[in-house]
Amino acid sequence: MKKIKIGILGGGQLARMLAQKGLDLGYDIHIFAESEDSPAAKVCGNTFVGNLNSLEDLVSFCKAVDLVTFESEFLDTKLLQSALKNLSTKVSPSAKVIEKIQDRLTQKKLLKKYGILTADFKKVTNQDQLIKALNYFPQGVVLKKRRFGYDGYGNFIINQESDIKNLPKEIWEDPYGFIAEEKISFKRELAIILARNARGEIVCLPLIETKQKDSKCDWVMGPVKHKNLPFLIKKLKYFISSLNYQGVIAFELFDDGNKLKINEVAPRVHNSGHYSQEACVDSQFSYHLKAICNDRLPTLTLNSKGFAMTNLIGTNTDEPKWKLPNKAFFHWYGKKDNQKGRKMGHINAIAKTPALALKKALEARREISL
Amino acid sequence: MKKIKIGILGGGQLARMLAQKGLDLGYDIHIFAESEDSPAAKVCGNTFVGNLNSLEDLVSFCKAVDLVTFESEFLDTKLLQSALKNLSTKVSPSAKVIEKIQDRLTQKKLLKKYGILTADFKKVTNQDQLIKALNYFPQGVVLKKRRFGYDGYGNFIINQESDIKNLPKEIWEDPYGFIAEEKISFKRELAIILARNARGEIVCLPLIETKQKDSKCDWVMGPVKHKNLPFLIKKLKYFISSLNYQGVIAFELFDDGNKLKINEVAPRVHNSGHYSQEACVDSQFSYHLKAICNDRLPTLTLNSKGFAMTNLIGTNTDEPKWKLPNKAFFHWYGKKDNQKGRKMGHINAIAKTPALALKKALEARREISL
Repeated sequence: MKKIKIGILGGGQLARMLAQKGLDLGYDIHIFAESEDSPAAKVCGNTFVGNLNSLEDLVSFCKAVDLVTFESEFLDTKLLQSALKNLSTKVSPSAKVIEKIQDRLTQKKLLKKYGILTADFKKVTNQDQLIKALNYFPQGVVLKKRRFGYDGYGNFIINQESDIKNLPKEIWEDPYGFIAEEKISFKRELAIILARNARGEIVCLPLIETKQKDSKCDWVMGPVKHKNLPFLIKKLKYFISSLNYQGVIAFELFDDGNKLKINEVAPRVHNSGHYSQEACVDSQFSYHLKAICNDRLPTLTLNSKGFAMTNLIGTNTDEPKWKLPNKAFFHWYGKKDNQKGRKMGHINAIAKTPALALKKALEARREISL
Repeated sequence: MKKIKIGILGGGQLARMLAQKGLDLGYDIHIFAESEDSPAAKVCGNTFVGNLNSLEDLVSFCKAVDLVTFESEFLDTKLLQSALKNLSTKVSPSAKVIEKIQDRLTQKKLLKKYGILTADFKKVTNQDQLIKALNYFPQGVVLKKRRFGYDGYGNFIINQESDIKNLPKEIWEDPYGFIAEEKISFKRELAIILARNARGEIVCLPLIETKQKDSKCDWVMGPVKHKNLPFLIKKLKYFISSLNYQGVIAFELFDDGNKLKINEVAPRVHNSGHYSQEACVDSQFSYHLKAICNDRLPTLTLNSKGFAMTNLIGTNTDEPKWKLPNKAFFHWYGKKDNQKGRKMGHINAIAKTPALALKKALEARREISL
């Protein structure tokens, strides 16, 4: 094994789980965290504490590693590229790809270019354009920030013109603007993760069902079936191959009862893939690291016929109280403080069927008050 | 959950795996490592670097935590007790128990007291006593250091009186002396791990077969059966309950084709239990932490019908070369240097039968040269 020094930009739970898996697999992992109390800093001896928006800090960190990857696509790619300018350090997935995907408008255009079904959309930068979009999509639209939206933050549902007055006043000051997506009525939400390395090997993780609550992932279970899945996978493989994508990429989908439409794309490990920690021999974290290092990508091996994950989300600032689960796998992120809406950990379960696994994971969660 | 601060004395692979699991479960883990390059220091943000034989260092570390545990029973228990004298910090398993078990003579006497079958033995401090023991056990003896022996180090096989001259010259200078154990011819070696908390809850992990090579564990597989197992478990439960034992305890056994005899006892997590990382919902590391914190001990849940582990042991000082396994779980210890005889990592596998799991784990190991 080449001892590639991997730098992970960000210190949250995704960086934490990447570091945990990476260290176990023998990778040389370095964390760039914004605080010593970051979840990832707690599990990695090699932690650099700095400001992700400081060129100087980025240069210091990047020059000490061979390859950087990230836990959030909302990186300042321009700054990162400046930091890497005179270094041999690579970034994976590439800054070019991140840039396209971090902006919902260019992301949607890219999907369209590759013939991948997604909700129709219009670019919106002011109220007039929003009204026009609403006339074009009379069933209603979802107004989405082009950049920095996540977990429902930055999304606004506009069913009719009168809803517009409820938007935050400062909304049109957003420098990046918005897209207005046609509102889709869907039967269920799904998600799927793929991993690709520079050799062109691609692994496709199972299709799963995801349940949202207050715009955040509440649980997932899988594997699930859909008649169009083989067709979708073919398109997604072609899509990521054409981009020469390296790493894990997550797709959130709507199942409208007939077709599968992409809702969102994340060029990184994703909350919907945490189940893979125990449900698969290689988790999404393992695949991501292998993919960016151009190591072989093992074919997917499932450890069970069904699996599920429930998120542990804070509801207040009290010290969490729990019983550790009896038949499920507990993963805590070690965040300094509990807080309403904050993802604090998750529970995975495996069982003979997806439904049984979900039952286990939900039962385990009932023992925990956050 | 009470936020108990757990201090782990030692920075090797056992401490590393305890820390990894503990952090994932939300425990507050602190490592006492002898170097920043220690395997455990690499996976834990809260690492204290010091000398385990320094009272001052022990006091500094112990006063910052609520509970200390350890990865090696060869602690200086007197020094540890001095360090804890004016502190409210507890040690678990207790110093009293460690003391009895770290000395093979008192360990054997203790087993005998509880009617647990073990090879017969004589105390030996000089050559005359060894000759006497050899007359008593004409089939031959294994001369074992009373303290600090491990992985075959400190053990000498004496088949006949003429073998005595091959012993290292300085051997009788050992201040703790030896025991001479009757040589047992066995069909196979087995091992079993139990966990107990202060509530009196006990969990018994599966009986497994272990294969030694050059006096070190080469592989394990399980679960295996033995007609005397229920009887043995009953005795072991009574034994650890009588000691008010808290934590995980490992028993290595000989199966002589009829009876099960205890070979060695380790009051800690153990190499023979690493399979549990993927084969069980709660691994030995999880059970140990729950047991010392007096959290509930979940009943054992196996993730598969068969499991196995192969050790990755260095054969030279070259940089290790490997392909990460395809269908097995890789665990690397992140040791600074490869070295002949050094445990560098291990591979776990699960499958429909123990033999199939072992096949997977052995196949994966063939791709690695250490």
